Amino acid sequence: MRGFSRIAAILTVGLVLCGCGKKSDENQQGGITMVVHGGAGTILKENMTPEREREYRDVIEAALRAGHEILVGGGTSIEAVVAAACVFEDSPLFNAGKGSVFTGQGTNEMDASIMDGSTQNAGAVAFVTTVKNPIKAALEVMSSTKHVMLVGRGAELFAAERGLEIVGPEYFFTQRRWEALLKAKEKDKQQSSGLSKGPDMSKFGTAAAVALDGDGNLAAATSTGGLTNKMHGRVGDSPIIGAGTYAKNSTCAVSSTGQGEYFMRGLLAYEVSALMEHAGMTVEAAAKEVVEQRLGLLGGRGGIIALDGRGNVAMEFNTAGMYRGYVRDDGQLHTFIYRDE
Amino acid sequence: MRGFSRIAAILTVGLVLCGCGKKSDENQQGGITMVVHGGAGTILKENMTPEREREYRDVIEAALRAGHEILVGGGTSIEAVVAAACVFEDSPLFNAGKGSVFTGQGTNEMDASIMDGSTQNAGAVAFVTTVKNPIKAALEVMSSTKHVMLVGRGAELFAAERGLEIVGPEYFFTQRRWEALLKAKEKDKQQSSGLSKGPDMSKFGTAAAVALDGDGNLAAATSTGGLTNKMHGRVGDSPIIGAGTYAKNSTCAVSSTGQGEYFMRGLLAYEVSALMEHAGMTVEAAAKEVVEQRLGLLGGRGGIIALDGRGNVAMEFNTAGMYRGYVRDDGQLHTFIYRDE
Repeated sequence: MRGFSRIAAILTVGLVLCGCGKKSDENQQGGITMVVHGGAGTILKENMTPEREREYRDVIEAALRAGHEILVGGGTSIEAVVAAACVFEDSPLFNAGKGSVFTGQGTNEMDASIMDGSTQNAGAVAFVTTVKNPIKAALEVMSSTKHVMLVGRGAELFAAERGLEIVGPEYFFTQRRWEALLKAKEKDKQQSSGLSKGPDMSKFGTAAAVALDGDGNLAAATSTGGLTNKMHGRVGDSPIIGAGTYAKNSTCAVSSTGQGEYFMRGLLAYEVSALMEHAGMTVEAAAKEVVEQRLGLLGGRGGIIALDGRGNVAMEFNTAGMYRGYVRDDGQLHTFIYRDE
Repeated sequence: MRGFSRIAAILTVGLVLCGCGKKSDENQQGGITMVVHGGAGTILKENMTPEREREYRDVIEAALRAGHEILVGGGTSIEAVVAAACVFEDSPLFNAGKGSVFTGQGTNEMDASIMDGSTQNAGAVAFVTTVKNPIKAALEVMSSTKHVMLVGRGAELFAAERGLEIVGPEYFFTQRRWEALLKAKEKDKQQSSGLSKGPDMSKFGTAAAVALDGDGNLAAATSTGGLTNKMHGRVGDSPIIGAGTYAKNSTCAVSSTGQGEYFMRGLLAYEVSALMEHAGMTVEAAAKEVVEQRLGLLGGRGGIIALDGRGNVAMEFNTAGMYRGYVRDDGQLHTFIYRDE
């Protein structure tokens, strides 16, 4: 038995050491769990002030707390991921809701999706410009229609009919995002025309949450403003079930962030689940495989959070950093920004 | 050796007998192949006149011929699937382009997508109302932008900029589809309000093509007008990579048709590829598994066409019929409508 313990210890250390992002304990045995991300990208400590870092961590913690309160109170994983996503959407710091980036036309076009791991039901909105909390509109699509996805004006009218808060374009105006657009447009001018024009795909942001509730049900939610200077009407991976969001009780709940087009071509959120189901991988191994092999080999950059039905957490990314965190039953908030924390 | 031959023969007969839809020869060895479908549903011989049946078969044959001509001339699978999809889009008989059904608002909102199996590149448009051939707009998104998906007005402006033919709403008016909308609305009135309202999800149509070219490259294209009486802004599986369309040279090219929301939740086009890649299934077994187990168990109805890199064809459906056909090097056109042909 001692020999087995030693081997198990070596294997555990090995698994932890070979991990790319920060990982939680291996082989959790259920219990409520909440994981969030606020986007991945070139997030370097040297470019951050302590005050700025604190502001980001505060929002990540607030999102975790919002979801955790619901879970400890016996709420569902769906309720928890919506609450957490709304915290990100209401902050000007993250690229979702209030803090959404501007399109090339100077508008804010938002996308969001949600999936219930217990029923495989899903809802999504894309290309919405007037809904204060796009994730709530995605939830309404899932719970109040036969459809999975509504886009544009149809989605906006539906959200208003369902009593969701509608806001004018001024609500989504933030000086920082506007300056980012002007800078991107200036860069465009300096470049030759053609394919090189368009959004800077090295800058991206998303906000998301995955959760496991007391009944063992998984859920995932993702919300985004897309890419700065993106084309009018461009829809990325965030509202696409299987690309940006996926949840299935028997495998995992997943949300991705990064260069959305790579996640769409590779169905990378779903692929984490497929590798668990068909190839018998753990959630950590599947998330690592997807980020390092699938995303990396396609030449894409970004990250994934994933959570299985036993509460095992994976937070993988191939960028400098990813705003992320998790919380379990004990309520202790774990937040991370850079690679080595 | 005789023993082995006998076992092989028994296995082959067994495989053919257990098939759900009509299948082509097993273990093809490459060579150009083209497969199309024009939607699945309650298509019964007793409701069809010989003239009407001939009209449908004529369009299926024209689509196959258009793609085949390109392939025998050394064209790519991408060119072939676009040509075939355009034949369906230009016909008033199929629910795509010209023959698109009406939304609940009396508009025509179309979706289309395309994927290149050799590069994993993809393009899609959704919620477009002015583009004569939505599949051409999807192709332009794939070949001329960094994006995978454009929706609504953004997609329409882009299509016009790229020189595609733009038409007014009168182009998409067909008396038959208009009457179908009026009938659906009448049915709505008779039903109670709430979740039971909305599109009749037992009536659906799509047009699609998958192809294998002389260089061994696979491609898939799907185009649709969606559901009669659908909600303004509803987007189904057809423009979603992985749900309605998928292609990867090492596995297969797939297009699905049916109750789109089930294909979106289950990522059923991608799942055919995932079962081949991760579970070692043949294209026939994977397509059968997806339609019978995945779609069927979710309670959904529809069908799938799939083609692997050796030219093996699968055409599976759990509805009464599916407009479908295939052609190989020899140019002989095989078309089918009902289950037992």
